Amino acid sequence: MSKIFSIERPIRFSHCDPAGIVYFAHFFDMFNAAVEDWFDQAIGFSFEEMHMRRKVGFPVVNTQCEFLRVCRLGERLRIEFTVVRLGHSSVELDIRGTVSGEERFRARHKIAMMSLTTYRAVAIPEELRAKMQEFVAAA
Amino acid sequence: MSKIFSIERPIRFSHCDPAGIVYFAHFFDMFNAAVEDWFDQAIGFSFEEMHMRRKVGFPVVNTQCEFLRVCRLGERLRIEFTVVRLGHSSVELDIRGTVSGEERFRARHKIAMMSLTTYRAVAIPEELRAKMQEFVAAA
Amino acid sequence: MSKIFSIERPIRFSHCDPAGIVYFAHFFDMFNAAVEDWFDQAIGFSFEEMHMRRKVGFPVVNTQCEFLRVCRLGERLRIEFTVVRLGHSSVELDIRGTVSGEERFRARHKIAMMSLTTYRAVAIPEELRAKMQEFVAAA
Amino acid sequence: MSKIFSIERPIRFSHCDPAGIVYFAHFFDMFNAAVEDWFDQAIGFSFEEMHMRRKVGFPVVNTQCEFLRVCRLGERLRIEFTVVRLGHSSVELDIRGTVSGEERFRARHKIAMMSLTTYRAVAIPEELRAKMQEFVAAA
Repeated sequence: MSKIFSIERPIRFSHCDPAGIVYFAHFFDMFNAAVEDWFDQAIGFSFEEMHMRRKVGFPVVNTQCEFLRVCRLGERLRIEFTVVRLGHSSVELDIRGTVSGEERFRARHKIAMMSLTTYRAVAIPEELRAKMQEFVAAA
Repeated sequence: MSKIFSIERPIRFSHCDPAGIVYFAHFFDMFNAAVEDWFDQAIGFSFEEMHMRRKVGFPVVNTQCEFLRVCRLGERLRIEFTVVRLGHSSVELDIRGTVSGEERFRARHKIAMMSLTTYRAVAIPEELRAKMQEFVAAA
Repeated sequence: MSKIFSIERPIRFSHCDPAGIVYFAHFFDMFNAAVEDWFDQAIGFSFEEMHMRRKVGFPVVNTQCEFLRVCRLGERLRIEFTVVRLGHSSVELDIRGTVSGEERFRARHKIAMMSLTTYRAVAIPEELRAKMQEFVAAA
Repeated sequence: MSKIFSIERPIRFSHCDPAGIVYFAHFFDMFNAAVEDWFDQAIGFSFEEMHMRRKVGFPVVNTQCEFLRVCRLGERLRIEFTVVRLGHSSVELDIRGTVSGEERFRARHKIAMMSLTTYRAVAIPEELRAKMQEFVAAA
C-alpha cells in the first residue's frame, strides 16, 4: 500500500479572477506548497535546510495539468498526490485536486534534484529516496 | 506562412526565488499575459471587452510545460507562440521561451471559450476564428 | 477587554526572493488573508457571501507597514490585529507580525465597505458592526 | 528642477479580483518593478548586479499607500515618483499612480541599502547617491 500525501487549502479572494474563479497560475503555486509540505512533514528535509544550508533544490522540470472543473471563492480544495516515478535525480508526482470529493484538476508534476552552485542534476541521496519510496503508487 | 506572436519580458527580482532563478509558477502568469496581449493586439478582442462586457472568458483547460534551462534575474525572456489546433471552442498554443535565442522552456497551452454566466463552453465566433487562423502553424 | 484576531503562516519558498527573505508584497497578501479569515471566522460574513451574493466588498483604502526585521524561509509568522477605529463604512486595523514573539513588522490597514455595483462606500450594517466592536482596542 | 521617473503598466486580468478591480497587493509589486527599472535605467545599478554580484539589496523598510480610486481591467496605469528624502542608507520615494491623468493612489515608499551577508544597513555609495540626487524634489 502506497501512502498518499494531501493538503487542504481554502480558495481565497486573492486566488480568484474577474470571472469569480481561481486564476489557473495559483494552482501551480499550490502544487509547490504541497511539495514543500511533503518534504517538510513526510520526507524530513525542509526547504529551508535544502536551499539555505545544503544549497540544493528540487526545481520543476516538467508539469502538466488538466483543469476539469472551475474552483470558486469559498471552496475548500484538497490536493493529494502519490509518486509515479522515482528516477536517479527526479521525482514525478500524480496530483489530484478535489472539492468535496469532486475532481477539479489532475496533474503530472516532475521535479529534479539540482545543485544550486552548479545548476546541474544530482542524485537523490538514499535516505531521501527511501522515504519517497513509501509514496510510490503500486502498479 | 503562419504568423508568430511574441512578447518580451524582463526577468525581475519578484520572479526569482531563493535559488536565484525564476520561480516556475510565474511562467504561467507570463503565458497568460502573452495570451492577453495576443487577444488585444492580434485578435482584436480585449480581455476587458471579453470578461466585463460580453461575459465570456478563455480559461485554461490544459497546460503543459517542459523547463529546459533556468532563467535568471536580469535576463530578457522572449515568449512566442503559434496555434497548433483550433477547435470548436478551444485554441491550443505551442509556446517557446528563449533568452538570446537559447531555448529555456517549451509549452502546450490550451484555452477554451466559456460563458461566464453558465460556465459552459461556447463556440468561437467566426470573426475571431478567422484572425486566429492566421497563427495556425502549417503542418 | 478587546479580542485579538490572529493567524499563523509558514514562510514558504514562494514568498522568498533572491536575498533569501520574504519579498515584501507577500505580506500585504497575508494581511488580506488574515482579514478574510476574520470576516469568515469572527464576523460571520464570508468573502464568498460578501462578494458573490451581496455584491459588496471591503477594499483597502489606506495601508502602511513598517518592516522592522526580515522574515526568512522556514519561519512561522504570527499575524495578529485589533480594530483601532470603527467608522461609518471603514475599519482600521492595527496589525503586528511576530516570529517566536519577536516583532517583524507593524501595520495600519484601513478597509471600507463598498458596493460592487456603484463602487461607492456604504454603511457597515449594525449586525457586523457589533461583532467588529469586540475587537476594538481599549484606549 | 528634479527629475521624475515613470513607468506605464497595463492593468491585466491577473491583477484583478472578483470585484473586477485591481487586488491591492499587486500595486506593491508594481512599486517594486518601478524601483527596479529606476535602478537599472536611471541609477545605473541593476538588481542583477546588486543582488547577485555585489550581495547588497534595497529592501522596503516602510511603505504607505492611500488608494483614492479603483483601477480596472484594461486601463493603463502610470506610476511616477521623485525622491523626497535621501538618507545615509535610505531613499524615500513619493509615488503617484494615475490613469489618463486621474489620480488613483499616492504612496510613500522607503527603501534602505542592506548587506545581504550581514543583513545590516550600509551607506549608499557616493556614485549612486549623486544619481539619486537628481530625483530629489525641490522643497
